[in-house]
Amino acid sequence: MSVEFPIPKPDGRQSVTAQALQRGVLRHLVAHGLFGLPEFSLVSGRRADIIALDGKGQVTIIEIKSSVIDFRTDTKWPEYRAYCDRLIFAVSLDFPIEILPDEVGILVGDAFGAEMIRQPPVHALPAATRKALTLRFARAAAGRLTALYDPDMRPAIDW
Amino acid sequence: MSVEFPIPKPDGRQSVTAQALQRGVLRHLVAHGLFGLPEFSLVSGRRADIIALDGKGQVTIIEIKSSVIDFRTDTKWPEYRAYCDRLIFAVSLDFPIEILPDEVGILVGDAFGAEMIRQPPVHALPAATRKALTLRFARAAAGRLTALYDPDMRPAIDW
Repeated sequence: MSVEFPIPKPDGRQSVTAQALQRGVLRHLVAHGLFGLPEFSLVSGRRADIIALDGKGQVTIIEIKSSVIDFRTDTKWPEYRAYCDRLIFAVSLDFPIEILPDEVGILVGDAFGAEMIRQPPVHALPAATRKALTLRFARAAAGRLTALYDPDMRPAIDW
Repeated sequence: MSVEFPIPKPDGRQSVTAQALQRGVLRHLVAHGLFGLPEFSLVSGRRADIIALDGKGQVTIIEIKSSVIDFRTDTKWPEYRAYCDRLIFAVSLDFPIEILPDEVGILVGDAFGAEMIRQPPVHALPAATRKALTLRFARAAAGRLTALYDPDMRPAIDW
């Protein structure tokens, strides 16, 4: 029995830029007391690039936009509002941030970190939604850990 | 930048028997729709061997008893009651289960799985405790995932 060295597969769904930004954003979140979970499936079927929880249970969704095209082709981002208290776009240092909508926060970064250049407005979630999201987050994260340490469990966990 | 192959360190806190049972119990949990998180620090400072969440948010704590001595020297297990709806002891196939207390569930197993030979009674948690535990569970699991994929984050995550 060997559980010491699980070897996760590469995700493969993001571009190199998006993958780098994901790491930098997760580092920013940790530094600010939030724990983020990448590629989180919402009950709507959509997938948030990163969902994060702070110590009070506030939910932040961070959408990673790796390029202008990536941003322009996403017309559905307002749907994330229903699943978070704060919505943030994370972009690379060379992204023209003036094209981003006014009503979201902006994180700018790279693989090594990120900085908040505009705080997101707060749209407080209904308590029932927050409760359901927190439970879904907890179960998804634990399921991923289980599958990492015990690859035989991967087929049983479809998060 | 390489995030593809995080290499978790061995935990090193459990005996070989306890480690094997941990895997078997986590498999049992997945098969029954629960996601478990090993070595979960409670706010009391105690550490639950496994804490698990079902789809409704019910909390189960599983204490792994790798030997009779391990069980006899633990006089503090009733304290876990305050942090779960269900309390279960998990033991090896050769454990003399007649020495276990009446008021807990019993899982018997090995590295490959486990079977519930006595269902635990339900002591429903107060809503506020369940909410706090679920958030703590979610943040701990996400923090561990972050540290697995980005080892530079390990010092920042003390779960």
